[in-house]
Amino acid sequence: MARLPLVALGTMALDSIETPFGRAENVLGGSGTYFGTAASFFSKCGLVSVVGRDFPDENLKFLARRGMDLSGVEVTDGRTFHWEGCYEHDMNAATTLRTDLNVLASFRPKIPREYRHCDFLFLANIDPAIQLEVLEEVKPKHSFCDTMNYWISARRDELTKVFEAVDGIVVNDGEARQYSGTPNLIKAGRMLAGIGGGKVIIKKGEHGALFFSGNEFFTAPGYPVADVVDPTGAGDSFAGGTIGHLAKHGIFDDEHFKKSMAVGSVVASYVVEGFSIDGIKDKGPADIQRRYDSYRRMVAFDHTL
Amino acid sequence: MARLPLVALGTMALDSIETPFGRAENVLGGSGTYFGTAASFFSKCGLVSVVGRDFPDENLKFLARRGMDLSGVEVTDGRTFHWEGCYEHDMNAATTLRTDLNVLASFRPKIPREYRHCDFLFLANIDPAIQLEVLEEVKPKHSFCDTMNYWISARRDELTKVFEAVDGIVVNDGEARQYSGTPNLIKAGRMLAGIGGGKVIIKKGEHGALFFSGNEFFTAPGYPVADVVDPTGAGDSFAGGTIGHLAKHGIFDDEHFKKSMAVGSVVASYVVEGFSIDGIKDKGPADIQRRYDSYRRMVAFDHTL
Repeated sequence: MARLPLVALGTMALDSIETPFGRAENVLGGSGTYFGTAASFFSKCGLVSVVGRDFPDENLKFLARRGMDLSGVEVTDGRTFHWEGCYEHDMNAATTLRTDLNVLASFRPKIPREYRHCDFLFLANIDPAIQLEVLEEVKPKHSFCDTMNYWISARRDELTKVFEAVDGIVVNDGEARQYSGTPNLIKAGRMLAGIGGGKVIIKKGEHGALFFSGNEFFTAPGYPVADVVDPTGAGDSFAGGTIGHLAKHGIFDDEHFKKSMAVGSVVASYVVEGFSIDGIKDKGPADIQRRYDSYRRMVAFDHTL
Repeated sequence: MARLPLVALGTMALDSIETPFGRAENVLGGSGTYFGTAASFFSKCGLVSVVGRDFPDENLKFLARRGMDLSGVEVTDGRTFHWEGCYEHDMNAATTLRTDLNVLASFRPKIPREYRHCDFLFLANIDPAIQLEVLEEVKPKHSFCDTMNYWISARRDELTKVFEAVDGIVVNDGEARQYSGTPNLIKAGRMLAGIGGGKVIIKKGEHGALFFSGNEFFTAPGYPVADVVDPTGAGDSFAGGTIGHLAKHGIFDDEHFKKSMAVGSVVASYVVEGFSIDGIKDKGPADIQRRYDSYRRMVAFDHTL
């Protein structure tokens, strides 16, 4: 029974999404799905989640084919978590039209034994009480968490406990501003780095991501995408690509983090080119390498003044 | 009579600005002032502008001490252009409270002979008819223009003529979206690159800037500033640092552009740390070099996958 290199706690969902480029009904979504699919380019990834009886078997089969371990995914009576949202012309922010928690409302994670003591654990956005419970049960070598605006305002104390317990915090710019109480992302990043294990990633959508660790500061610009079809899952895919690439090599130093964030940016750039996971489901290592080479060129310049 | 390496057409203003960090009354401002002060770190810069009799002599003396050539600055009867604005908590967008064009309303640029056939010309935001007139009279080797939302909606045809005539377009993200009619900055940049001489810089404030030229794409992240006091002039200073550095070396290729944009980001990062030009007026080459070294580190990563 081999320990897994990477485990993620996150949602699996059926999403209904409308963007200026079309509409998709009940398509595969959820933070765990996006994170795991992205991470699977680089590492085996166990998933702790829950779905209802309505969850299409072909989705589970697809994720298993990607190399994900689904023994931590409970299939239970009831309907799968459903999110309905739309994006306006500028594609920057989703408007949530409807959220049906369904089976997620009574979700109590069941952790397979082989998930324990994994190298890397990612706690995607979910009730911080559940994040803490999973963190304590899994006891990973390295851990990261995400969150969302709701938990920052409604469960700040529990969330702070999660922040204090993990090695790295991965949040978007709005969440960083909200938690820290400052609009300045540099201050917000430093403040968050002082709470937990010291590593912080602030995701800025199309503008890329910032990395804080001690005196280290790194900025990973977004990969340029001309035809954004659906931004849903971009942040979770960025996290999945980044942490999946860390897990592949089992390295947890700042230099490896930077490179892995560039990789995460590449994976996220594919995700937004289609609805659901359509943009990455048929991509392989050669696609990652090609866009990574292009990414390297777009940030490189001759340094001599 | 030596030809100048760099000439800028732009405004000189007395600004009244309020930010969460304080208020400044009738301080030195204007696109020409910011551009020229930033460019003067690297190159002699001639300025084509106009001020009123109320314009403090010490401002002119300061700019001359910076190495600017002010023979193109007309001092005329009337009051100097005055802009009053404020920034809210997030410091991202200025709200204009009042604009008094004053002497700018009847401005007809007078071009000193030694400004003609300069190497680099920057046409800062002003009536596109004036931009075109100056461009045709100066006949520089390389030219760039900026603009603003008002001209895009009110003088689109004249503005398009300017875009077609220059070698490079330097606009912010909102202007790029407005002119191109697409919210996607990659598409907007490519569209603008197809109109004029082919080089386009899209400024994104704290998120840095994008560069388009043929098949080249480059992204220069913003330098992280924790204590932004006043963002006024950041975009013009970025342009001044970038084009001033191009002019210093007299080189106009894409590789030099990229490096120069990194330099421009550094100069702009100093500007926002104070009101008016307080953040850069006492800075020297060692300050630029220090922050440039830090900038290089924050975008560098080990490329091997």
